[in-house]
Amino acid sequence: MPAEPLALGFDADDTLWHNETLFAAAHQKFHALLAAYHDPATVERAHYATELRNLPLYGYGVKGFTLSALETAIELTAGRVSAHELRELIALGRDILAHPVELLDAVPATLAALAATGHRLLLITKGDLQHQERKIAASGLAPHFLAAEVVSEKDDATYARLLTRHGIEPARFLMVGNSLKSDIAPVLRLGGYAAHVPYPLTWEHEKLDRLPPAPGRFFTLESLRDLPALIARLP
Amino acid sequence: MPAEPLALGFDADDTLWHNETLFAAAHQKFHALLAAYHDPATVERAHYATELRNLPLYGYGVKGFTLSALETAIELTAGRVSAHELRELIALGRDILAHPVELLDAVPATLAALAATGHRLLLITKGDLQHQERKIAASGLAPHFLAAEVVSEKDDATYARLLTRHGIEPARFLMVGNSLKSDIAPVLRLGGYAAHVPYPLTWEHEKLDRLPPAPGRFFTLESLRDLPALIARLP
Repeated sequence: MPAEPLALGFDADDTLWHNETLFAAAHQKFHALLAAYHDPATVERAHYATELRNLPLYGYGVKGFTLSALETAIELTAGRVSAHELRELIALGRDILAHPVELLDAVPATLAALAATGHRLLLITKGDLQHQERKIAASGLAPHFLAAEVVSEKDDATYARLLTRHGIEPARFLMVGNSLKSDIAPVLRLGGYAAHVPYPLTWEHEKLDRLPPAPGRFFTLESLRDLPALIARLP
Repeated sequence: MPAEPLALGFDADDTLWHNETLFAAAHQKFHALLAAYHDPATVERAHYATELRNLPLYGYGVKGFTLSALETAIELTAGRVSAHELRELIALGRDILAHPVELLDAVPATLAALAATGHRLLLITKGDLQHQERKIAASGLAPHFLAAEVVSEKDDATYARLLTRHGIEPARFLMVGNSLKSDIAPVLRLGGYAAHVPYPLTWEHEKLDRLPPAPGRFFTLESLRDLPALIARLP
């Protein structure tokens, strides 16, 4: 048990519940839909390039994914893709948005145990505001958290603003998440702790080669269920 | 001048800057695009029905508008609409998202005057998180506000939560906006003041026939520039 309780930030998508698996399935169906025109690798590359180009206008989330997939399909087929095929793409996006929340292993018990030992829990997730709020509500996890913050980007400035809003010293903050880029690196730069819990799949855009140096402040866990033991060892 | 300063909530779209005019222009281009298939009233009716049906999944904002327009175009033409025509619809949405922020008359001066007399100003807007944040930043108005809150819905529960978060008594809160449904009625029900500044255009979904009774708490202004004089008369 640390000397005094910490504030614990939790990423949501692929940390508390499955997400990237849904996108991966949608990508596969997208590739199948365009199989008559291009190989999967070409579709994937073109779609990712379109997503990156549209990110400043669309932001993160399923609707931007869908619009970029539609645009990619039209471009890659020089307009030969049919309206019925494009309707399939719209349905792929809607399927993700309508999909029930599937919690990862041990999540409710771990959150309950941490809250019971006096730590303050914050949920910090980026993406589409309405979709994230629906998933938070459907997860049943909201009562464990002091607050749920949906943000448009998870960078140093965002974390600094949230820590200030909740009166948290960076040195007494630990962030847990699956994305080195969005959950780990910014918090290490601010002087906090970060626990990386890898998810089997990672969106290209969330990959990161190098972390900032942070001796004694960065940890890798196999599962969220290992978090209470880690926290108990912190000073 | 009221006995003590108020907290003032400001809607953003069509209250601080133009918005519905951009959608109206996009609707007209949408109607023109489908003119070979259907008259404008039919397109409009079908698109609005699609938008309402998709609202629980898409929420408010330009991306949902675009996806619903695409779906409507495919349905209304039984799939005969071309991929190139659908690409035009995607471009219509992107044009709105990329459009510069155009402030309404007298907005910066009015906000500055109100902040200078000690009132606390909050911006409260609903819609797409990333687009709203971009517009807030581009407007240059952020320094006038204590906080800018982007919410997924503007109902009684949302306002109650925001007033609690900022330690505001409902009786000392005045909300300003163009939507009777989203800006005015919920705040009147909570016991606050509300000033309606109509915008020349109103989205069908924001229309409301009857307001809750609120003697002495509801006002209609022709322009935001009339707000300081109204506030000076309040108890």
